[in-house]
Amino acid sequence: MDLRYQTVQTWKIKNGEFKSVDDVVTRETPLTVYWNDEELVTLLCTMEYPDELAVGFLHSEGFLKSREDILEIKTNEELGSVHVNSKRTATIARETFLKRYITTGCGKGSTFYHLSDAFSKPIIDGFRIQSEDIFNLMTQAQRKSELFKETGGVHSSAICERDRILFFREDVGRHNTVDKLAGRCLLDNISLIDKILITTGRISSEILIKTAKMGIPLLASRSAPTDLAVKHAQELGVTIAAFVRNQRMNIYSYPDRVRL
Amino acid sequence: MDLRYQTVQTWKIKNGEFKSVDDVVTRETPLTVYWNDEELVTLLCTMEYPDELAVGFLHSEGFLKSREDILEIKTNEELGSVHVNSKRTATIARETFLKRYITTGCGKGSTFYHLSDAFSKPIIDGFRIQSEDIFNLMTQAQRKSELFKETGGVHSSAICERDRILFFREDVGRHNTVDKLAGRCLLDNISLIDKILITTGRISSEILIKTAKMGIPLLASRSAPTDLAVKHAQELGVTIAAFVRNQRMNIYSYPDRVRL
Repeated sequence: MDLRYQTVQTWKIKNGEFKSVDDVVTRETPLTVYWNDEELVTLLCTMEYPDELAVGFLHSEGFLKSREDILEIKTNEELGSVHVNSKRTATIARETFLKRYITTGCGKGSTFYHLSDAFSKPIIDGFRIQSEDIFNLMTQAQRKSELFKETGGVHSSAICERDRILFFREDVGRHNTVDKLAGRCLLDNISLIDKILITTGRISSEILIKTAKMGIPLLASRSAPTDLAVKHAQELGVTIAAFVRNQRMNIYSYPDRVRL
Repeated sequence: MDLRYQTVQTWKIKNGEFKSVDDVVTRETPLTVYWNDEELVTLLCTMEYPDELAVGFLHSEGFLKSREDILEIKTNEELGSVHVNSKRTATIARETFLKRYITTGCGKGSTFYHLSDAFSKPIIDGFRIQSEDIFNLMTQAQRKSELFKETGGVHSSAICERDRILFFREDVGRHNTVDKLAGRCLLDNISLIDKILITTGRISSEILIKTAKMGIPLLASRSAPTDLAVKHAQELGVTIAAFVRNQRMNIYSYPDRVRL
């Protein structure tokens, strides 16, 4: 059985006719993340790369800092569980996480709009890229979106070098696509200070903060940013390139990094 | 100052040229909801109809059942706060809310995929609608999307009668659009058993459950549903009409309600 999508019965109305056919929809599956055998959170996701999702989520929430923190990862896709065991106890991250998930906008937006706990240091670097490279990467990312073509129901994000996509991830959850990439890069010890993050979704403050936490200097999307994402990008040193389509884009922060 | 959108400096790249211009982006603003003067949650939202958002959220989470439960609503848009005072203590809802927000997928998907606490009774009714009415309502909803036209950064949803839109709400948060509508209808004591909910976003399990809790028999979207939304729709008695565009749609549950 494919854990990513599923066939369901549907009734199609087309040109005034009604007929029953089978259709493929994307699956939305609960994944429970355990931290040192304590149940921490259940995410609704596309069941693909669950280990990456768990690790990326734990990194984004401050539980994990590097590959070396991980002792063991046990994944059970059928049960929908990932156990991550670490030598770190991450007491502060755990407390902050529990508190934050009570007091801030779960399911609605940023889980951490207090910037103080969101990042270690602003990204200040000599990163430069040609606008043409960004257009090309966006085109490549769109071509890759398989699950979307099949079901029309998922978001995707990609970690890129200047001229190619390194990793591409799809998920029913916009944030999960980015967490999966963060997990993959942490597991592979990949430095992100010269990489680009491309996403299909809108650029909200939450996605921007995840990008900054990964240390990525440029975030690109076909969609729009919010004012809070732009403010955070300015503070945290991330370039936002939005509305990237048809040889056009808008840069909202650190435009010097993008060359014609 | 408009609380919904904001002008920011941007650098536009177009046809190989780079120029600095002002651009309008949608605002993403924290709104803290207080329940009987206790801080409950902070939502990131579009600061428009914050009272509806607070009331709809509280209804969706089981704190409020009806208009009569509300003693007082105090809204301060500048501070970003809504105080809802009630004669109900909602002890169980509060405990479930705190627990749920720790143990389930905040920011990632459904906050309540345990259906047992999600609804009172399945929607079983004689609701019928012509497919042509659904097409017309979708067209009307698209025409209304003002904030999207301005900024390209928001979702919208609408509560409709067969032939017209009653309420239309926009927000940076997909779920917030539905909560605002739920709040409006609760405040106005509007029965929803013969209404239609239209949304621009994908139909996830969370949106489906919110629809069911409102008692709405038909949920329509231009986008795709997930398998979990389809399962819940079958259980809870909601008709899903998805991919509604260009005189086509797919019905995923209770197709008898839709007539050619």
